[in-house]
Amino acid sequence: MRFAKGHGTENDFVILPDPDGELDLTEETVRLLCDRRAGIGGDGVLRVVRTRALGEGLAPSARTAERAEWFMDYRNSDGSVAEMCGNGVRVFARYLLHAGYVEGDRFEVGTRDGAKQVTVETDGDITVGMGLVEMQGSSSAELARQVVHGTQISVGNPHLACEVPGPVSEVDLSVPPVLDTEAFPDGANVEIYNEVAPGVLEMRVHERGSGETRSCGTGIVAAAAAATPPGENAVWRVRVPGGECTVTLDADGVRLSGPAVVVAEGETSLV
Amino acid sequence: MRFAKGHGTENDFVILPDPDGELDLTEETVRLLCDRRAGIGGDGVLRVVRTRALGEGLAPSARTAERAEWFMDYRNSDGSVAEMCGNGVRVFARYLLHAGYVEGDRFEVGTRDGAKQVTVETDGDITVGMGLVEMQGSSSAELARQVVHGTQISVGNPHLACEVPGPVSEVDLSVPPVLDTEAFPDGANVEIYNEVAPGVLEMRVHERGSGETRSCGTGIVAAAAAATPPGENAVWRVRVPGGECTVTLDADGVRLSGPAVVVAEGETSLV
Repeated sequence: MRFAKGHGTENDFVILPDPDGELDLTEETVRLLCDRRAGIGGDGVLRVVRTRALGEGLAPSARTAERAEWFMDYRNSDGSVAEMCGNGVRVFARYLLHAGYVEGDRFEVGTRDGAKQVTVETDGDITVGMGLVEMQGSSSAELARQVVHGTQISVGNPHLACEVPGPVSEVDLSVPPVLDTEAFPDGANVEIYNEVAPGVLEMRVHERGSGETRSCGTGIVAAAAAATPPGENAVWRVRVPGGECTVTLDADGVRLSGPAVVVAEGETSLV
Repeated sequence: MRFAKGHGTENDFVILPDPDGELDLTEETVRLLCDRRAGIGGDGVLRVVRTRALGEGLAPSARTAERAEWFMDYRNSDGSVAEMCGNGVRVFARYLLHAGYVEGDRFEVGTRDGAKQVTVETDGDITVGMGLVEMQGSSSAELARQVVHGTQISVGNPHLACEVPGPVSEVDLSVPPVLDTEAFPDGANVEIYNEVAPGVLEMRVHERGSGETRSCGTGIVAAAAAATPPGENAVWRVRVPGGECTVTLDADGVRLSGPAVVVAEGETSLV
């Protein structure tokens, strides 16, 4: 089976080109592909399939995906299906260009969260439209050595984005944050951020079920949204351990920009 | 650049075929290749080079490597050069067969620790001659929640192999063991093992500089040697978190057998 490996700010993926939807991708195969020692290793798998060959029904909220030629069938490293992944879409788009599956600097990618607009910037960065974020009020989380206060935000998935007064490097994210279970019945990703210069955030993230990670596309968007005064437009550079992204918030919604690279491709015997 | 990825009991490696020794492999490139998110990911790099094309002088102790057609240029994931890696040689041998670089079921591999005899078993497992181990007396280590006592052993690199009375799963290896610095001025890998059935050991290992790992070829050999009464021959099956190996100790020295697989190969843009 052909494969590629790529990452966006060190959120990394195993990419499986399956244009005609011939692959029966089991949870077990996904787990093995993502296994960092016995497999290839990745935070998830991006199956690259033509939308018309997808072979599964889309939820009403995802029907806009049908207008995109290519569909990102995203799987978490545990084998489960996920609707959307911000850095995943950016790496997926890079692969489409790399493989010659699309041309030009504007196209859409289908996801289980609907069609996502992709723009290739002149510096090579890839921007993805993340839709609208939903601000849901204040909440707090108990970390290993402090309590942090912030904004509950939905970016398709639940977040608590918390500004801290000092360097984010000094915050202890080694244990899962304790959240208000009424506000977050399904848990949440917790971002801590600090504005280190005008328009520049430093951020770290604890992802539910994964622990601290090098980057999280929806978390970067959540921190930028939390840092923006209500009703205003803004552009933020957000530095995470794995690199830097830019978030633009305006009347069109939220867009996430940053690097996305394919580092290897070939054949694997695991599929 | 062509590459492959493989593992032996989940000790995993990026393999770089460079038969004519044309590659100038820097520490930085090794670190990037082994980076599990920004790169391909591995515990080390195995450069596959013809011994006559190696382009470096061998220490007197390693001169026997000159009689092997192929040389394993082993690099740790931090970019440093290492002499030898038991699971690495087994994966290296699998790659030589896979690539058609060697034929037959007995051949030698050159390393900075000299030539190593490889045998392909009828079940596909690969056996490597590990030379002689040196028993160096008793010592102990302070773990997170207990003190363990065992045998100091050199398998080219330093080990402390400790038998524990109960299941190895109950031992806390989450912090680096505190060793007798006179006995181990350069630190050591610490193995804990338990004989779960006649001829069968369960083992876990804490590798110096790396923490607990899924497998360690020299550590498996050290535990088997420690479990063998002085002067006796023995065959041990050793179960580690990443799989199972067999160790044979007799007048010819010590041999390590187990599975070794190539899971992917292709081209990378990182070299």
